[in-house]
Amino acid sequence: MQELPPSYYAVIFISKRTIGDNGYEKMALTMEELAQKEEGFLGIESARDSQLGITVSYWATLEDIKRWKDHTAHKVAQEKGKSEWYEHYQVRICKVEGSYSFER
Amino acid sequence: MQELPPSYYAVIFISKRTIGDNGYEKMALTMEELAQKEEGFLGIESARDSQLGITVSYWATLEDIKRWKDHTAHKVAQEKGKSEWYEHYQVRICKVEGSYSFER
Repeated sequence: MQELPPSYYAVIFISKRTIGDNGYEKMALTMEELAQKEEGFLGIESARDSQLGITVSYWATLEDIKRWKDHTAHKVAQEKGKSEWYEHYQVRICKVEGSYSFER
Repeated sequence: MQELPPSYYAVIFISKRTIGDNGYEKMALTMEELAQKEEGFLGIESARDSQLGITVSYWATLEDIKRWKDHTAHKVAQEKGKSEWYEHYQVRICKVEGSYSFER
């Protein structure tokens, strides 16, 4: 995501997956597409290796985060996450207070 | 990292590497070991795939983050990062305002 002036919000989602895909990749893509249409959505960045996945999504306000958390289709995905896809996860809701970047 | 009561700080470091190791892995390990000895260090979590690397480190205060940024050995690593290891990176300094987790 591009540099934006603070302050906006970041949701850090750190997860360990269960074994196998079990429909995860398709649902993850659908959720990302849906999130992008939500009010206040600013961007998303993800990385996953064999140990851990980290997804950071960025939002204008806490209300936008709450609305996305309560989105009906997202709630269905959250339930599948608990029943099938994740061994564990942690969510941290953060206010971005400063940023800087480097470009070669 | 375990659940901690807010508020503490998260530094989200998102990077795209240049091609090849060029001494990166060794330095990254050394930096992680050094950071763990710093005052206010609370934890670190990383994931990297072919597209992107995301490292989130957690700190008690903004002063702790500043002190680690200015640490002599870390400054040497930062310079190598710009000259050799990274195509680009973004750093976001965030205050953690809330968190929750799931464990299977």
